[in-house]
Amino acid sequence: MITSRTALLVSAVFMTALRADEGMWTFDNVPTKRIKAAYGVDVDQAFLDRLRLATVRFPGATGSFVSAEGLVLTNHHVGRGAIQQVSDAEHDYIRDGFTASSRKEEKKVAGLVLITLEKMRDVTKEVGAAVKPGMAPAVARKAREAALLALQQAEQKATGLQVESVSLYNGGETWLYGYKRHTDVRLVAAPEAQMAAFGGDPDNFVYPRHDLDFSLFRVYENDQPYKPAAFLPFNAGGAKVGEPVFISGHPGATARQETLAQMAFARDHAIPFNLKSWKRRHEALLRYGATSPEARRTTQDQVYGLENNLKRWEGFLRTLRDRDNWDRLEKQEKELKAAVAKHGGRTAAAAWESIAQAVDREKGMMKARALVGTLGSQTLSYALTLVQAQAERAKPADQRLPEFSEARLKSTETRILNPKPIEVGVDKALMLNALQEALEILPNHPFTKAVLKGRTPEQVVAAAFGNTKVLDVAERKRLWERGVSEATDEMLNLARAIDPILRAQRKQYEDEVESITKEQGGRLAQARFEIFGHEAYPDATFTLRLSYGKVDGFPANGTLQAPFTTFAGLYDRAWGMGPDAENGAWKLSPRWVDAWKKLDLTTPYNFAYSADTIGGNSGSPVVNAKGEVVGLNFDGNQEKLGNRYVYDVRTMRAVAVDTRAILEALTKVFEAPHLAQELKAGRL
Amino acid sequence: MITSRTALLVSAVFMTALRADEGMWTFDNVPTKRIKAAYGVDVDQAFLDRLRLATVRFPGATGSFVSAEGLVLTNHHVGRGAIQQVSDAEHDYIRDGFTASSRKEEKKVAGLVLITLEKMRDVTKEVGAAVKPGMAPAVARKAREAALLALQQAEQKATGLQVESVSLYNGGETWLYGYKRHTDVRLVAAPEAQMAAFGGDPDNFVYPRHDLDFSLFRVYENDQPYKPAAFLPFNAGGAKVGEPVFISGHPGATARQETLAQMAFARDHAIPFNLKSWKRRHEALLRYGATSPEARRTTQDQVYGLENNLKRWEGFLRTLRDRDNWDRLEKQEKELKAAVAKHGGRTAAAAWESIAQAVDREKGMMKARALVGTLGSQTLSYALTLVQAQAERAKPADQRLPEFSEARLKSTETRILNPKPIEVGVDKALMLNALQEALEILPNHPFTKAVLKGRTPEQVVAAAFGNTKVLDVAERKRLWERGVSEATDEMLNLARAIDPILRAQRKQYEDEVESITKEQGGRLAQARFEIFGHEAYPDATFTLRLSYGKVDGFPANGTLQAPFTTFAGLYDRAWGMGPDAENGAWKLSPRWVDAWKKLDLTTPYNFAYSADTIGGNSGSPVVNAKGEVVGLNFDGNQEKLGNRYVYDVRTMRAVAVDTRAILEALTKVFEAPHLAQELKAGRL
Repeated sequence: MITSRTALLVSAVFMTALRADEGMWTFDNVPTKRIKAAYGVDVDQAFLDRLRLATVRFPGATGSFVSAEGLVLTNHHVGRGAIQQVSDAEHDYIRDGFTASSRKEEKKVAGLVLITLEKMRDVTKEVGAAVKPGMAPAVARKAREAALLALQQAEQKATGLQVESVSLYNGGETWLYGYKRHTDVRLVAAPEAQMAAFGGDPDNFVYPRHDLDFSLFRVYENDQPYKPAAFLPFNAGGAKVGEPVFISGHPGATARQETLAQMAFARDHAIPFNLKSWKRRHEALLRYGATSPEARRTTQDQVYGLENNLKRWEGFLRTLRDRDNWDRLEKQEKELKAAVAKHGGRTAAAAWESIAQAVDREKGMMKARALVGTLGSQTLSYALTLVQAQAERAKPADQRLPEFSEARLKSTETRILNPKPIEVGVDKALMLNALQEALEILPNHPFTKAVLKGRTPEQVVAAAFGNTKVLDVAERKRLWERGVSEATDEMLNLARAIDPILRAQRKQYEDEVESITKEQGGRLAQARFEIFGHEAYPDATFTLRLSYGKVDGFPANGTLQAPFTTFAGLYDRAWGMGPDAENGAWKLSPRWVDAWKKLDLTTPYNFAYSADTIGGNSGSPVVNAKGEVVGLNFDGNQEKLGNRYVYDVRTMRAVAVDTRAILEALTKVFEAPHLAQELKAGRL
Repeated sequence: MITSRTALLVSAVFMTALRADEGMWTFDNVPTKRIKAAYGVDVDQAFLDRLRLATVRFPGATGSFVSAEGLVLTNHHVGRGAIQQVSDAEHDYIRDGFTASSRKEEKKVAGLVLITLEKMRDVTKEVGAAVKPGMAPAVARKAREAALLALQQAEQKATGLQVESVSLYNGGETWLYGYKRHTDVRLVAAPEAQMAAFGGDPDNFVYPRHDLDFSLFRVYENDQPYKPAAFLPFNAGGAKVGEPVFISGHPGATARQETLAQMAFARDHAIPFNLKSWKRRHEALLRYGATSPEARRTTQDQVYGLENNLKRWEGFLRTLRDRDNWDRLEKQEKELKAAVAKHGGRTAAAAWESIAQAVDREKGMMKARALVGTLGSQTLSYALTLVQAQAERAKPADQRLPEFSEARLKSTETRILNPKPIEVGVDKALMLNALQEALEILPNHPFTKAVLKGRTPEQVVAAAFGNTKVLDVAERKRLWERGVSEATDEMLNLARAIDPILRAQRKQYEDEVESITKEQGGRLAQARFEIFGHEAYPDATFTLRLSYGKVDGFPANGTLQAPFTTFAGLYDRAWGMGPDAENGAWKLSPRWVDAWKKLDLTTPYNFAYSADTIGGNSGSPVVNAKGEVVGLNFDGNQEKLGNRYVYDVRTMRAVAVDTRAILEALTKVFEAPHLAQELKAGRL
C-alpha cells in the first residue's frame, strides 16, 4: 500500500496521459476539477443526481425523462423493436412513423421495461474479504461470486429495487446498483425509419450526418403518466459551437485497460480472423437473399447488422494499426509498469506475464471458439438452451451455468419463449454456412465430427429442421416446463451432441484464459488504483457513466467537418444523391419530399461533439452546463470506431440530433405542436 | 522499326493496362473507339474542331468561348489577377464581385492576352534529323534546339500565328502549335472572391465543394465583340448523374512516363525530404506570425500557400505509397520492358539503367538542391537577379541563363520591379529559418560557409538587411538599369557570395541529371511509340488536351460522396461552420446571406466527374456529348492529388461548377438576367 502523498504525486503524472475530454466516468467519481479546468463549469452534486435519476436504461441502450409527465426520449433505433411491435397489418409505423395526437393514442409496448439508477453501493471490500490467501484462481473466483450473490440478494430484499452487481476497473472495484423498474411504457411518437436512419448503411458510423434518429415514449404508473424523480427539460436553443456538453448513459464495453499483449492479439489475430468469418456469413446471407424477394426481406435485418459489424471491427483494426495510437498505448503500459516497479507492486508486475501466457493459450483456442457453437442458428441455440436447462436446473444454484442461475433464469426463459417467429430459411442458410466453414477450417475437430457424423452439411441441415418442434413457441414452452427427456426431435439431438463439447470448450477457456485475465487484470487494476487512485476511469461495462466534451468539428476528408449539419444539408444530400442511389438510401419519405418549403432550413440538424462515448450510449441525453437537453446522442463518426481501445480527441466525435431539429420536425412535419410544447415546457 | 501489325497486337495488351476514363489526349489522337466502347458516344472531327477552336488559353490555365459574341468563361481564380487589376481605390471587385450591366461597362484588362489553337504541325522527323549518330547528349540537345527554333520562326512568319514548340511523350514527338492571339479582353462579371473560393484553403483540393468559381470576360476586336470561330453554348439543364462528359484544356504537368527509379526516388527521398523542410518553414512562419497581429496578417498568404503545398505533396506521397497504385506502376514498367526486349529496342533498354544512374546522382545532390539557394528570401532572390543580370547581359544571347534570354528578359525585369512592398519581417524570419536549416543539414557545404563566414544565422540576417537598398523598388530599378558594380549593399554582397555556388550546382544538375533523364526519357518514349503507337497518351505539358469521363460520386469518409452538391449544401456548410470559423473561410458575402430565400435551393451547384485532369485544367469547359457546356472545371478531390503519377478511377474525381448554378446566380444574385440569357442563347 502506498501513502496518499505518493499516490497524489504519481497521479499528476498519469493525468497528463489522459487526452482532453477522455473518459467514461462513474457517477461516484466525476472529474469535476478536470471539467472545471477545461471548461470553467462547476459540476455539483445536484446536477449529477438529477442527470442520474433522469437517465433511463433501455435494453442495450439509454434514454431520458424529458418532461414532468414521464415523457422519455431515446433514439429511433433504440425504440425500433417497440415501434415494430405496436405496428400491425394496417399500420406500418416503421415505414410511416407514428404520432399520438392525444394521450389516449399512446401505444403500450408489452414487455418493455425501463429502469433508472436509484442507488449505488461499493461492496469491493466485502467481496474481496471472501478470497483467502493461497486460493487457486478458479476457487477465488467462485468465492467472490458467492459472496457477491449473497450481498446482491440481501440488497434487493432490503430496497425492493432491481439490484445488479457491477464490476469496475477490470475487477478492481465491485458495486451493487439498485434500479427502479418502469413496466408500463407507451409509444408516443417516431419518425419514418427512413428519415431516422437517412443514408442507411453507407452513412452509418459517419459524420456529416442527417438523421432524425429519435423516438418518444411515455412511462405510466397506475395508468397515469408517471412523475419521474427528475427530468431534463429541452433547451429550445439547442447546442452552440464550442459549448461544453455532458452526456449520461450506458456505454457498453471498452477494452482500454487490456494489456498490450491482449490488444496485439486482437489486432493481429482475433479481429482479422473474425472479419473473414463475418464476411463469409455476409456472402451467405446475400446468396440466400437473392433467391426471392421474400428471402431478401427476411435477411435484410441480419445483413444490415452484419455490415455494421464489419464497418465497426474494421474501424477497431484501423485504430489499433495507427502508429500514433499504438505508440500511446505502449507508452501508457510502460509508464504503468515503471510506476508498479517503483511503488512495490510485485504481484502486479507478474500479472503482465501471466496475461501474456493466457493470451497465448487463447490464440490456440481462437478458431474453435469462433466456430464451435450453435452454428449461427437461432433454432439450434433455443434447442441447446432447452437441453442444458434440464441438466442445470437439477443442480444446486451455485453450480449452474450462469444463464441458469437464479438471477438470470427468468431472462433465459424470456429469450427462448420470444414469440417472434424464427425465419426458417435464413436460419437454415446460416447453419449451412457455419457447417461448411467448420468443415473447411476445423475438419478434424470433435465438434465437426459430432455434428456431421459422416453426413454432408446439407444433410445435417435437412435432418435438423426436418421434424423439429423447437420452431414452435408453444412447444418450446412445453419443453422448458416439462423437460426434453422424451423428445426425439432431431434439432434437440443435435443440441445433445454438441452440448458436452461446448461445455468443455467453455470450461477450458474460463479456466485457462478468462479466470487468469480477470484475476490478473484485477491485480493490475488494483495496482493502478493504489498508484493513481480515482484519477483513472474504468472500462465501460453497460452501467451508468458521465462523459463530457464540447460541440466541435474535426479534420477529415482533407478539410474540416462542420460542428453542425442543418435541414438544408439533409436536402442537399437527398438531392445530390438522388432517390435511386444505393437502393434508395437517401430517398426522402413522402411527407418530407416537399417539407423543405415549410421547414426552417437553417435549423441545426445533427452535431458533432468530443465526449467519450461508445455503443450503449445510443439514446443518451446531451445536456448543457445547466442540465438542459441540447441534443440526443445516436452515433459517432468513422474515426471513433476504434474508441473501444483508445480515445483520440483529435478526430473522434460523438454525433447527436439537435433538439431544435426535433422541435421543428414535431411542429411542422409531425404536426404535433403539443409534443414540442411539452418538451419545451417540461409539462403536458 | 516494328511493323504496324505487331504494333497493333502489342497495343491491345497495353490498352488493358489503361484504367477507365484515363488519359489527357492530344486533339490529333483522341481515343474515339475507347470512348464509343465506354459510353456509346461517337466523337467526330466536327465535335473536336469546335471544342478546340472554342477553347481559350489563359496564362497558366484555360477558358472557353461560350457565345457567338466573344463571351469567355473561366474560373474566378484564373481571372483573379485581371479582376484585381481593374479594381481601384473605390471599387474592390475581388471583395464585392463585378457585373457589367451593359457592354459599355465591360472593363478592359490591359496586357491580358488569350490565345486559341488554330494549327498543329508534327515536326518530330525534321527535328530528329538534326541529331547525328555519335553526338554526345548535350550536343544532341543543342542541335535539336537549334533545328526546332528555326522551324518555329519559319512557321510563325508563314502563318502570322503565335507559334510554340510542343514536346510530347517525354520528347518522343515534337510539334509546332500555332495560336491566334486575342489582346482586347474585358471583364464582364465575377462573383465575390469569398463565394468563388468558399471554404478557402481548408476546402481547397476537396469535394464535396460549394464554390462559385467562375468569371466572365469578353474578347473584342476593333472595339467590337469578337465573333469566335467556334463557341460552346450552355446547356441550361446542366449535367446528369452518369452522363458522359468531355473536357478540353491545358493540363500543366504530369510525371506518368517517369521510370520506377524516378518515382521511387520521389516517394522515398525527394517528397519526404521536401515535406519535412516545408513543415519547418511552416512552423517558422507560425512562430513569427505569433509575435503580433501585424506579423500574423503579413504571414497569412504564405502560410496558406504552404499549407496547400503540403496538402498537395502529401497527396502525391499517399498515391505513390498506395500498394495497388505501385503494383500497377511496376506492372506497366515490366510490360514495357518485356515489349522493348522482344521488339528490339536495345537503345531503349539501356535507358532505364542510365536514368537509374542519373537518379542516383540526383539523390546525392538532393539536400543541396533543396537548401542551396536564395534562403527563402524574396529580397535575396531580387539581389541575386540583379547581380546575375549584370554578368549575363554582357554575354551573347544564346549563352545566357534562360531567365536572361531575349525571350524572358522582360518578365525577369517585371518580376524584380514588382512594386508590391516586401514584408521585411516575414522575409527575415524565412531567411533565418533557411540559414538554421542549412547549418543543421549541410554544416560543411561551401554554400553554408560562404553565407555564414563564421557568423551566426542571426548575425547574417541582421547584416544582410542592415543597409540594403534592394527593398526599395526605385533602387532596384536603378540597379537593374545601371548595374551593381558600385553598390556595397550587404544583401548584394550575400548574392555575390552565393552566385558562383548556385551556378555550379545548377550546371552540375543539368549536365549529370536533367540532360540524361530528358534524353533517355525521350528514347523510352520513342520505343513506346514504336511498340504501342498512339494507344498511349503523352504526359501533360500545358498544351491542349481532351479528357473524358462521367458524372459520378466516389467512396470517401466512410460512405459515398454525392455526385452533386446544391445551393442547399452551400448554406448548410455556411450555417454549420458559422461565419467565424478559420478566419471566416465559410462566411457568406453580404448579398448571399439572405439570397437563399430567393434562390432555387435544389439547383445543383458543384459536381464530381471522373475525367483525368490536373492543374492547368482550371477554367476548362465540361461539355456533354453534344458539345454543350454543362459545367466549368475548377479543381479535383483530395484523392486526385496523386494524379501527377497515376490515375485512379476508383476514387479520383475532377470538380466543376454546374452551369445551372451559374445561370441561377447570374439571374437572382448578380441581377444580370441578360448574361444568363446570352449564355443560354449563345447570343447577346
